[in-house]
Amino acid sequence: MTQEPEFVVAVDWGGTWNRVNVVDSNGTVHWENRVANSLSRTTEELLANGERVMREALDWCGDRPVAGIGLAMAGPIDPETGIMDRPPNLMLLDGVSLKALWEPVFGLPVWVGNDADLAALGEYYFGAGRANPEGSDAASREEAVLPRTLVYLTISTGVGGGVVYRGQVFLGASGMAAEVGHMAIESGPDGPLCQCGSRGCLESLASGTAIARMAREKLAEADGTASILARGRPEDVTSGHVFQAATQSDPLALGIIDRLVAVLGVGLTNVLHLYNPDVLVLGGGVSEGIQDLDLMPRIHSLILERAMSGRHREFRFELSRLEGSGGMLGAAMLVWLNTSLA
Amino acid sequence: MTQEPEFVVAVDWGGTWNRVNVVDSNGTVHWENRVANSLSRTTEELLANGERVMREALDWCGDRPVAGIGLAMAGPIDPETGIMDRPPNLMLLDGVSLKALWEPVFGLPVWVGNDADLAALGEYYFGAGRANPEGSDAASREEAVLPRTLVYLTISTGVGGGVVYRGQVFLGASGMAAEVGHMAIESGPDGPLCQCGSRGCLESLASGTAIARMAREKLAEADGTASILARGRPEDVTSGHVFQAATQSDPLALGIIDRLVAVLGVGLTNVLHLYNPDVLVLGGGVSEGIQDLDLMPRIHSLILERAMSGRHREFRFELSRLEGSGGMLGAAMLVWLNTSLA
Repeated sequence: MTQEPEFVVAVDWGGTWNRVNVVDSNGTVHWENRVANSLSRTTEELLANGERVMREALDWCGDRPVAGIGLAMAGPIDPETGIMDRPPNLMLLDGVSLKALWEPVFGLPVWVGNDADLAALGEYYFGAGRANPEGSDAASREEAVLPRTLVYLTISTGVGGGVVYRGQVFLGASGMAAEVGHMAIESGPDGPLCQCGSRGCLESLASGTAIARMAREKLAEADGTASILARGRPEDVTSGHVFQAATQSDPLALGIIDRLVAVLGVGLTNVLHLYNPDVLVLGGGVSEGIQDLDLMPRIHSLILERAMSGRHREFRFELSRLEGSGGMLGAAMLVWLNTSLA
Repeated sequence: MTQEPEFVVAVDWGGTWNRVNVVDSNGTVHWENRVANSLSRTTEELLANGERVMREALDWCGDRPVAGIGLAMAGPIDPETGIMDRPPNLMLLDGVSLKALWEPVFGLPVWVGNDADLAALGEYYFGAGRANPEGSDAASREEAVLPRTLVYLTISTGVGGGVVYRGQVFLGASGMAAEVGHMAIESGPDGPLCQCGSRGCLESLASGTAIARMAREKLAEADGTASILARGRPEDVTSGHVFQAATQSDPLALGIIDRLVAVLGVGLTNVLHLYNPDVLVLGGGVSEGIQDLDLMPRIHSLILERAMSGRHREFRFELSRLEGSGGMLGAAMLVWLNTSLA
């Protein structure tokens, strides 16, 4: 008789840290450790450091059975082969497949995915998706009324996203779907230039980087000098400073916040029309600012006003419940989903 | 021993005609008839006329077994209950579920869907999706290398769409996904007002209605009088006239076509970033104009220029192969898919 697996090892491999966790099927973390990517100067060192902390996790599990390893990776990844495709913040792993590399090393199935996609999967099963429509959270994953379509947006330095459709990540043809940050919504010549080369992408209007850029632009104008934000050097202003100044009713900051609310109204209505989610979740640092300023109801109203039909308006609008651990929990769930299918 | 079903009855119920077909599992049409909606003044009459032509189709099948009935409906529809939700061009069917109504009447399973969604499903299995990457079409459905993600856009009076992900329609939470026409791409105050109430939706920039509107606007300008299009009354100008004038190198018409190419470049790149299709298909009357003017290579180049990554650029860009029968063939396939699953 085969023992039911108790744990998975779930990894969130970001630009700065490689975080390794032992997680059960209810999303409870039993063990965690992390290693800084900066300790490694070569791909070999990076992989050796990753392998070492993986071994620690598996050693901790001892003889309690492990279903597999799930990895949420920062950057583009082929969901089938697991090969990383020029990940800007993890360039040492370009061309590497941790699936191909580690399945023989650890003798366990290895599943990989993009971190924004897996953060959506984490929210679906363990976060905002798990909340009952009545508001009270389900006690266990089995009891929860799960969404049909959950869209997760991470609004941070950049803007990314993930879509979960009836329990599975919507990957598109090659794992590159849901690049919501590069949906152009102000594509005319006045739209701001995005780092992707196009104009008016959501990322160029609503990311932390965009908020800081708008602050600098406004500070350079004649009436910018009266702002709280003019006390420091313009080049040091961050989106956090803008949110902070807005809590103090600084007019310059409030103007930027109004613009943020307006562009999110447009961008998120597009998301509604394109994916028709019943749960729409915002995460990332800018979303924390949105929460602090209690902007969710304003953004929600704008979306409801713009939405083209009553059916599109039927969605829960939520902030992330898992901030920081969404990708890791999604990576864990990816293993559990594939284990129960097997 | 149960006989394998030979046929399905597949219906395309549009604003003008209700077309009924007998189709086999390879998409071949064996019988067809249609009834004009204008013959009916009440919901009861419309349903009675529809039922009569359904009976003719089933009578034709005789004792050869029928798997079920598939209906592609013009308008919003709940994919599970089959209830029509205020279909603008079929208001007599508002609140009606042909699934609930006809399953007991005909003693057959009835499957329903939105016509743009099912046109995408038709293209996936019987049209552009079936083409082999090498260019030669597969001889049968079984031989075809099917896409992972096919996005279909119908560009006609309005702009609609459908997404097929690994063989199934991506419905969203309530069948309202892929409303590509109401993705705002020029949401600023200069964006044209869309009939949905928002500004700068793809439909307000690239539909037949938008093309005709732009022609009227340009004709009203001082330099409009030299155009071929100025020979008729401005209010009679259609997108067809604009395409026609463009083939004769009319500068006013060519200016509108340049704008059409540019906005499709923006809108379709958004589609790439959001759904990551490996096959992108254009259908509808405007797409015929696009074909006549050989604009596909220009639009394709613009998309490749804007796309944010090499993986997004890996897609086939095709015109519909099934124009006019895509929805019906998708409705047929919906029955076959559900039959093989049962």
